[in-house]
Amino acid sequence: MKIENIDVNSYPGSEKVYMPGYLYKNIRVPMRRVNLTPTVRIKDGEQEITENAPVYVYDTSGVYTDPAVEVDINQGIPRIREEWIAQRDDLELLPAITSDYGRQRESDTSLDGIRFACRYAPRRGKEGKAVTQMALARAGVITPEMEYVAIRENMNAEALGIDTHITPEFVRKEIAEGRAVLPANINHPEAEPMIIGRNFLVKLNTNIGNSALSSGIEEEVGKAVWSCYWGGDTLMDLSTGDNIHETREWIIRNCPVPMGTVPVYQALEKVGGDVKALTWEIYRDTLIEQAEQGVDYFTIHAGALRTHADMISERLTGIVSRGGSIMTQWAVLHGEENFLYTHFEEICEILARYDVAVSLGDGLRPGSIHDANDRSQFMELDVLGELTEIAWRHNVQVLIEGPGHVPMHKIRENMDRQIEKCHEAPFYTLGPLTTDIAPGYDHITSAIGAAQIAWMGTAMICYVTPKEHLALPNLEDVRNGVITYKIAAHAADIAKGHPGAQVRDDAMSKARYDFRWKDQFNLSLDPSRARQYYVESHKSDDHFCTMCGPNFCAMRISRSVAEDCSR
Amino acid sequence: MKIENIDVNSYPGSEKVYMPGYLYKNIRVPMRRVNLTPTVRIKDGEQEITENAPVYVYDTSGVYTDPAVEVDINQGIPRIREEWIAQRDDLELLPAITSDYGRQRESDTSLDGIRFACRYAPRRGKEGKAVTQMALARAGVITPEMEYVAIRENMNAEALGIDTHITPEFVRKEIAEGRAVLPANINHPEAEPMIIGRNFLVKLNTNIGNSALSSGIEEEVGKAVWSCYWGGDTLMDLSTGDNIHETREWIIRNCPVPMGTVPVYQALEKVGGDVKALTWEIYRDTLIEQAEQGVDYFTIHAGALRTHADMISERLTGIVSRGGSIMTQWAVLHGEENFLYTHFEEICEILARYDVAVSLGDGLRPGSIHDANDRSQFMELDVLGELTEIAWRHNVQVLIEGPGHVPMHKIRENMDRQIEKCHEAPFYTLGPLTTDIAPGYDHITSAIGAAQIAWMGTAMICYVTPKEHLALPNLEDVRNGVITYKIAAHAADIAKGHPGAQVRDDAMSKARYDFRWKDQFNLSLDPSRARQYYVESHKSDDHFCTMCGPNFCAMRISRSVAEDCSR
Repeated sequence: MKIENIDVNSYPGSEKVYMPGYLYKNIRVPMRRVNLTPTVRIKDGEQEITENAPVYVYDTSGVYTDPAVEVDINQGIPRIREEWIAQRDDLELLPAITSDYGRQRESDTSLDGIRFACRYAPRRGKEGKAVTQMALARAGVITPEMEYVAIRENMNAEALGIDTHITPEFVRKEIAEGRAVLPANINHPEAEPMIIGRNFLVKLNTNIGNSALSSGIEEEVGKAVWSCYWGGDTLMDLSTGDNIHETREWIIRNCPVPMGTVPVYQALEKVGGDVKALTWEIYRDTLIEQAEQGVDYFTIHAGALRTHADMISERLTGIVSRGGSIMTQWAVLHGEENFLYTHFEEICEILARYDVAVSLGDGLRPGSIHDANDRSQFMELDVLGELTEIAWRHNVQVLIEGPGHVPMHKIRENMDRQIEKCHEAPFYTLGPLTTDIAPGYDHITSAIGAAQIAWMGTAMICYVTPKEHLALPNLEDVRNGVITYKIAAHAADIAKGHPGAQVRDDAMSKARYDFRWKDQFNLSLDPSRARQYYVESHKSDDHFCTMCGPNFCAMRISRSVAEDCSR
Repeated sequence: MKIENIDVNSYPGSEKVYMPGYLYKNIRVPMRRVNLTPTVRIKDGEQEITENAPVYVYDTSGVYTDPAVEVDINQGIPRIREEWIAQRDDLELLPAITSDYGRQRESDTSLDGIRFACRYAPRRGKEGKAVTQMALARAGVITPEMEYVAIRENMNAEALGIDTHITPEFVRKEIAEGRAVLPANINHPEAEPMIIGRNFLVKLNTNIGNSALSSGIEEEVGKAVWSCYWGGDTLMDLSTGDNIHETREWIIRNCPVPMGTVPVYQALEKVGGDVKALTWEIYRDTLIEQAEQGVDYFTIHAGALRTHADMISERLTGIVSRGGSIMTQWAVLHGEENFLYTHFEEICEILARYDVAVSLGDGLRPGSIHDANDRSQFMELDVLGELTEIAWRHNVQVLIEGPGHVPMHKIRENMDRQIEKCHEAPFYTLGPLTTDIAPGYDHITSAIGAAQIAWMGTAMICYVTPKEHLALPNLEDVRNGVITYKIAAHAADIAKGHPGAQVRDDAMSKARYDFRWKDQFNLSLDPSRARQYYVESHKSDDHFCTMCGPNFCAMRISRSVAEDCSR
């Protein structure tokens, strides 16, 4: 697949490798191995050659970058978890999908032209069985998914003999205690297991979605592959336009990472955008519809209560969460409590059958520096804490969504309160943006906040693109957003001391000091861009760059000083 | 002047205004007033119109954005401080320039074609007079420059009645105590006074410079104007190529912000790039040459000592400061101590005569995450602290330069140590970059660190462009670098609680909630880009954006909820 002049079939200078499991021999954990050239020095007139060890990189790109696999998006990608799931005796294979809406779409022949062709019967947890990763973890079971993520998190530790605390048993314990989430809908066997928790690598989510105004199915699938290629760990499909159901099927069947949605968007589409006409029944059917397609986590705005609506007038920018505004308006129009709150136990019962995680939406997140850390935001956070306990009683894995727009000096309070009020459930924040005055650069205003809050303990950060507040992102914007958030996440991983995180930095710095330019490109988060910038301004492979010129290169002088001193 | 499709004669939706002084009536402090459109709401079927107060913005663009001034770069920009300087009785007007090199270039007729035409006789402090802003501040004098910066720092405070601690007397005290620097060479009267200190707005420096490989004089002047247009507070000319002397004259005579240099670069050019051939005499003459041209601050690597050279081998990336590597090599080759250290008293005597500030270079700053906070870095910082006290004895204003590459968890130690060891002299850092693995995006890796260290107390941050480590920046890179650093600086100003800093954020957020798109563009750090992104994807002026589509706009729903609730 070639997108925007980038060949997403491979990364330059890298090999796709797979690590086997110990507990489960059929596990194959993908990693990217960046092979490096040797260091060459002249010492006393002789060439001295030293090999440089390869660097292993966490790889979210799925089989798209495996030359041994030929992907046909009409068939979907390999269902790597199928075998593990099929062997379980706590799951049942349903004869057909069970949602009303799903059946209706399935029988509509006018949709045949846009439908994903292969159909798979959905699975569901057997009545009375606790089938989620959390339930299994609590029962002391280390699942294949758990071993998979343990291997994945330690990409350089084994090769380099670095001590790591991240064992399969550690993964199990973190999930059992709710500190980490392993999103793994039993109906999304294409997804490569990954883990979200503050004692693991910081993850990043990307958003895609067609709205009524633009985009189409093929473009959205392309964007999903694109964002995984650059490093997106999960993907939220926020579509609000036509044919959401069919678009989602295409994406899930081709998606190597866990996928999330906000079900109320589709529920609202089903009632023609009329908030008042929304009902619990329509919403409930939407949950089942999407759970059976394989959505791995649902953002549910169950914490935005009717009483909070009165506090909107204190704010400069009201409610900026779409889901939050919909549910608040519904509550006000009906004079009733938010039905996601009142039906939360039933929601959890449904989610538990498919192992869909709940991402508790922050419907009242601040949309401006002015509104950060105000009482509506924190009152909702308290409610999310209550809901967390309910979900956990049902063995449903929980993420807590967070802001938004927060100035730097108010970030710490967000993190500390979230840990306390939500009982250490993983925090998943949008940025936060640290100033409001830079539209066109909000990937940067927010990466500043994201790096800080991730260092403090946020488990997953939701990317923001340069077009935020202005327009829908194109592919180049997605690339810029993902790389910017990879930077924030990696900076936090280093600051947190994740085992082996700094290996790649050290390899890059050594390549710099050695003037091994190609290794520098290949070790980069965005090898294509690094190479492009270099090539555009260089005519030769000389051992200096345009920054300093031949007489002034600090590293060259420094090396000669070091050589003088060592003689 | 039109550069890269941007009209730098004005900012959209803004007026250039000047604020008068109270103590000095002839002071005219430039600001940019962003005029806003009114808020229009429909209430009970009637239009309700509310005016929105204009927002004042700190303006570094000089007369280039004043429609009342026609700039001819062959003449230079108005010499706004000339009158204040001419009235002083502690300064003498020299009959001619006094440096050997300056005289030699002046008499070389082959340079006539590239020489800046207007010549001004230089000034110097009279023998025995203490003429620097620091000396005057210590003597209890509030200079016009001090009142100027006090007004400038409070751009929104007066209009909005915000309490501010930044009075002319406060400015004087901060300068007297060394906590702030007001760079103001008496031979650069074109520069609009500004202040660098942790109790003021965070400032940002940009670098320009021609190297042997690229660029030319006109392009460099254009870059200077360009970086000021976007918000650069000071400018360092790091040229290492041909005709440095003449290039610098062009830039200074057209530069509305203080300018810095690294004199050793030119000194080394004078000896053909042969480090061993460098001498104190050549360096000394270079200081005088540049001081008489009007350079406002010199980066001087006087803290990189001979003993430090032995520690280079402990590092992954040796010495990455050009000045540091030159002086270390010189010391090793000669078996003598760094002559900038041994001659530091004489250096200060020269600087004091022209009120050139010294920016003590961190020749041993870490060039990689691996080397951050190591013993060579901190041993040099101790030396910079000693040198600070020497400079202050000569009434020379002092900045301390800082790293470089530092992971987030090691940033705090840099700031705290610098304050302690360097007696609160303002810290001026390059980034720091918080990871090494993102060449092509190092404006972002470093803005994450810059925002944090600025919040902790760094007074000025030196920008990094996307081309760092790869190539020389072009105009678009400079724009991206400056805006990214404006974001970091502003995020820190908000976090520090600078009086009125958040006014612009609040105005932006209100404009968002009101769907006043043009006001959003005009209030942006980069109005052209914000507008461009919007226009590219919108066909109409409708009250929703492509992010959500017409049914889903959270702010629209939120406003209707607020209106429902308020009825």
